[in-house]
Amino acid sequence: MIAAGLIDALREVVPDGVLTAAEDLIAYGFDGTFYERTPPLVVLPSTTAQVCAIHRIATARRIPLTPRAMGSGLSGGAVPLDGSIVLGVSRMDRVLEISVDDGVAVVQPGVITAHLQALVEARGLFYPPDPSSLKQSAIGGNVAENAGGARALKYGVTGDYVLALEVVLPDGTPIRTGGRTVKNVTGYDLRRLFTGAEGTLGTITEITLKLLPKPRVKRTALAVFDRIADAADASTAVLAAGIAPAAIELLDALTMRCIAENGVTGLPLDADAILIFGADGNHESVVNEDIAAIGAVARAHGARTVTVAGDDAESERLWNARRSISPALARRRPNKLGEDVCVPRSKVTAMVARVRAIAAEHRLEIPLFGHIGDGNLHPNILCDKRDPEEMARVAAAARAIFEAAVELGGTLSGEHGIGLLKKQFMELDVGTDALALMRRIKAAVDPLGIMNPGKIFPEPGGADAFRL
Amino acid sequence: MIAAGLIDALREVVPDGVLTAAEDLIAYGFDGTFYERTPPLVVLPSTTAQVCAIHRIATARRIPLTPRAMGSGLSGGAVPLDGSIVLGVSRMDRVLEISVDDGVAVVQPGVITAHLQALVEARGLFYPPDPSSLKQSAIGGNVAENAGGARALKYGVTGDYVLALEVVLPDGTPIRTGGRTVKNVTGYDLRRLFTGAEGTLGTITEITLKLLPKPRVKRTALAVFDRIADAADASTAVLAAGIAPAAIELLDALTMRCIAENGVTGLPLDADAILIFGADGNHESVVNEDIAAIGAVARAHGARTVTVAGDDAESERLWNARRSISPALARRRPNKLGEDVCVPRSKVTAMVARVRAIAAEHRLEIPLFGHIGDGNLHPNILCDKRDPEEMARVAAAARAIFEAAVELGGTLSGEHGIGLLKKQFMELDVGTDALALMRRIKAAVDPLGIMNPGKIFPEPGGADAFRL
Repeated sequence: MIAAGLIDALREVVPDGVLTAAEDLIAYGFDGTFYERTPPLVVLPSTTAQVCAIHRIATARRIPLTPRAMGSGLSGGAVPLDGSIVLGVSRMDRVLEISVDDGVAVVQPGVITAHLQALVEARGLFYPPDPSSLKQSAIGGNVAENAGGARALKYGVTGDYVLALEVVLPDGTPIRTGGRTVKNVTGYDLRRLFTGAEGTLGTITEITLKLLPKPRVKRTALAVFDRIADAADASTAVLAAGIAPAAIELLDALTMRCIAENGVTGLPLDADAILIFGADGNHESVVNEDIAAIGAVARAHGARTVTVAGDDAESERLWNARRSISPALARRRPNKLGEDVCVPRSKVTAMVARVRAIAAEHRLEIPLFGHIGDGNLHPNILCDKRDPEEMARVAAAARAIFEAAVELGGTLSGEHGIGLLKKQFMELDVGTDALALMRRIKAAVDPLGIMNPGKIFPEPGGADAFRL
Repeated sequence: MIAAGLIDALREVVPDGVLTAAEDLIAYGFDGTFYERTPPLVVLPSTTAQVCAIHRIATARRIPLTPRAMGSGLSGGAVPLDGSIVLGVSRMDRVLEISVDDGVAVVQPGVITAHLQALVEARGLFYPPDPSSLKQSAIGGNVAENAGGARALKYGVTGDYVLALEVVLPDGTPIRTGGRTVKNVTGYDLRRLFTGAEGTLGTITEITLKLLPKPRVKRTALAVFDRIADAADASTAVLAAGIAPAAIELLDALTMRCIAENGVTGLPLDADAILIFGADGNHESVVNEDIAAIGAVARAHGARTVTVAGDDAESERLWNARRSISPALARRRPNKLGEDVCVPRSKVTAMVARVRAIAAEHRLEIPLFGHIGDGNLHPNILCDKRDPEEMARVAAAARAIFEAAVELGGTLSGEHGIGLLKKQFMELDVGTDALALMRRIKAAVDPLGIMNPGKIFPEPGGADAFRL
C-alpha cells in the first residue's frame, strides 16, 4: 500500500515523526463526523522546513496529503481519503509572539484555541473566535475551516482575525501572505483564499491573528420559551431593536434532554426551547442595560422567564452546557449527522419550523441548536450508521434540510466547512459556474491535485449525500 | 484603432451607451492619480445582461476591458491601458433593497457611497466604510479597491461588509458568490478574491452589503501637538489603553496649510500636527467617557490642547476638513503622488519620522496625513509631472517610502489598491512566490488576460515606479 522508499524518505526529514503502526494510525482516521478512513501513514513535522520537505516528497511521488490539526472538525475535512497520508501539525504548537503594542499574536497551527485565549486574556487582550470545540481544537484547523462560534454574532469568525498566513504550497514552496497590519490590499487576498480552503490548497504553518482589547464586563442571560417559534422570533427581535449581544444561542427541548442525560443539571427540561444571551463591554452599567433590554424583548416575545447569571461561575456553567452538546449527542445514539446551515435573520423562524417538520416526516430525532443570532443552526440528525434503512432516511432528511436552507436564501455551511459531508450539495448552493471557477482555482494552486483529495468538490454522478 | 464592427456590435447591446467622440472619451481616461490614458471607446451598460454581452464581445475579439465606477480611485486602477475599452457602470446606480430584518443592502455598483449611507441611516442602519471620496465614489469602485476610510479603525474596510457579489467573469458568465448571511464557508471565498482585485478578474454587477445598527451618539475631539512624534505616540497609547475610538486621523502642518490655502478655517496652523479622534456608541455617558479618556491620554503624550466638538455641525466641519485634503493638495502643486502605506501600530512613530527624513533628503514637499490609528498613512508627494528632474526625485522618494514601510513590517497599500501606481513594487512586498501564485490565479480566472490589463502585476524589467 505504501510506495517503496516513502517511509525512508519521510524519516530522513522527520526521524522520530513517521507513524506506520496500525494502532497509531487509527487515531488519525476520523474527526467529529462519523467518517473513518485509516491513513496508510502519518507524518508529524515540527518545523516549516520539514513541512516543505514533506510536500516536495509528496509532489515528486504524486502522493496525496491531508493536513490535520486536532481532528475535531465537523465536516470530514481532516479525514484522509484516496490513500492520503496525514500531515499532522500537532507538534507545531508554539505561541511565537503576543504583541500588546501591535495587537497581534503569531502562532503555529497546532496551538489549542482555548490555550491561546487564556494567554492573551492574561495580557488584557482578547481573541474572540470561540468554536464550541475550543478546548480541543487548534488554530490551524480553525483557520482551515474558518470556524465560528457563539461570539461570531458580535465579533465575526476566525477569518476576520487572520492578518497573515505562512502557507506551504503543494509543491513545497512556502509563501507568506498578509502582515501585521489590520489593513492590507496589496494584491489578491490570498489569506482569505487559504482560510476556509480546508487544506485543499496547501498546509498552513504559521498564523498571525488580530487581537482586541479584552472587554471588562460580561453577562449571560437565560430565556425560557414554551414554543420554539417564539424563541426564534425573540432572537430576531433583539437584533432588530439595535441591541448588539455578543451571542444568542438556541437549544431546543431534545438538545436539553441529551445534555441532561449526560449529566448537565439545572436546565428547564419542560420548555420547548431556551435562548442563552451573552453581552459584553467595558462599562458595567451599559452591559447591564443591554441585558435588561434583551430580557424585555424576550419577554415581549413569549419568554416565560428570563434570568441573568449571578456571577462568572453561573455564566460559565451555562456556556459549558452549551459546549457539551456535540459530545452529548454522540452518546444518545451511536452516530450523528451534524448540519451547519445558515439562513438570513428574517428566515430563522421559518427554518426552525422546517427542521421540525423534516424530523417528523422522516421519523428521525433531530436535536436543534446553534448560533441563532446569526442564523447559523446546527440540526443534528441522530442515527446508527449500521442501519441502512435509517441511513436512507437520514440522507433524505439531510437533503431536505439543505434544500430548505438554500430556498430560504441561506447556505450549506456557516462555520464547519464542506469537507466530505456536504460536498455533494455544493452545486445546489453555489451554482454550476461558481463551482467551475473554484475548480479552476484549485487546479491553478494544486495542479497535481495532491492536497486533501475528495473534499469540497462533488464527485461526478454522485447524488449520494455521504459515503460512509 | 477600433476594430471594425466593434462599435456596431456594442451598439446592438447598448444602443444609447457607446461613446466614441474624443470629447466624451477624455473624461474616462483618468482617476485620482496623475495618470491619463484616453480609451478608444466607452460602453455604459444598464443591466447585468448587457455587461455579460459586452464581455462576450470582448472575449470573442480579444479586446481588453477596464471596468470603471466613478473613477475617483487613487492607484490608477480605473485608468485604461493597452487599448482597453472602458466598461463604465455609472448607469447601474440603483439601490435594489434595504432590509432592516436581515440587516443588508443590495446595490448596483454605480451607487454613490454617501447616498447609500444616507438611505440606510434614515432607516436606523449604518454602513460604516467611509473613504474620504465618499461623496464622489461608488460602491462598485469601493469593492474593487477594497476601500477603507477613517472609521475602518473600529469598523473594518469595505470587504468586511461584502456578503455577496454578482460578478461577470471575463468570458461573460455571471456568477453569484456569498449570500445574505453573515457566516458562509461554503467553498472558496470568492467574494474576497474579487473584492480588491481591481477589476482584473471580472466586472462586479451587484453587491450585497452587511449593515449594522446606527450608533446613537457620536463625538469628535481635536488634539493639537507641537511635535508630530508626540501625536504618533499618543495615537498608539490611546489604543494600548484599551479604548476603541471609531477613528484617529493625523494631519501634519503642511497638510493643514494646504487645506487652509483652500479655504478651510479654524485649524491651528502653528502646530506641527493634529489628531482628530472620533468615538461613537449607543450611550452618551460612555461615549463622553471614552472621549475624556482619549483626551487624557493625548495630553499625557504632549497634546497642548484637546477640544471636543460642541455639536454635530462643528464635528462635521472637522471631518469635512479632513475629507478636503486630497482635492486641496492637488491645488498647491500641479500634481501629487499619493501613497497609502500601512505599518504595524508600534511602528507608526518611526514611519512618520522616516517620511519626514525622506522629504528632506529628496527636497520635496510631502504633506503627511492619514488613518494613523490603524497605521495607514498617506504621505503625498507634491510635484509637477512636466519636470523630469523633480520627477526623478519623486520616484526615488516613493521607492524610499515603500522600502521603509516594508522594512517596518508594513505594506504598500492599506486601502487604495496597487493599480498602476505601485505595481512595480509588488514583489518587494509580497515576495516572488506569492506574486507567482497571484499570476496563476489571474490566469485561471482570466485566461485571455482581457480584464484591466497592466494593473497589480509588475512589468518585466521595469524598476520604474510609474509610467507617466
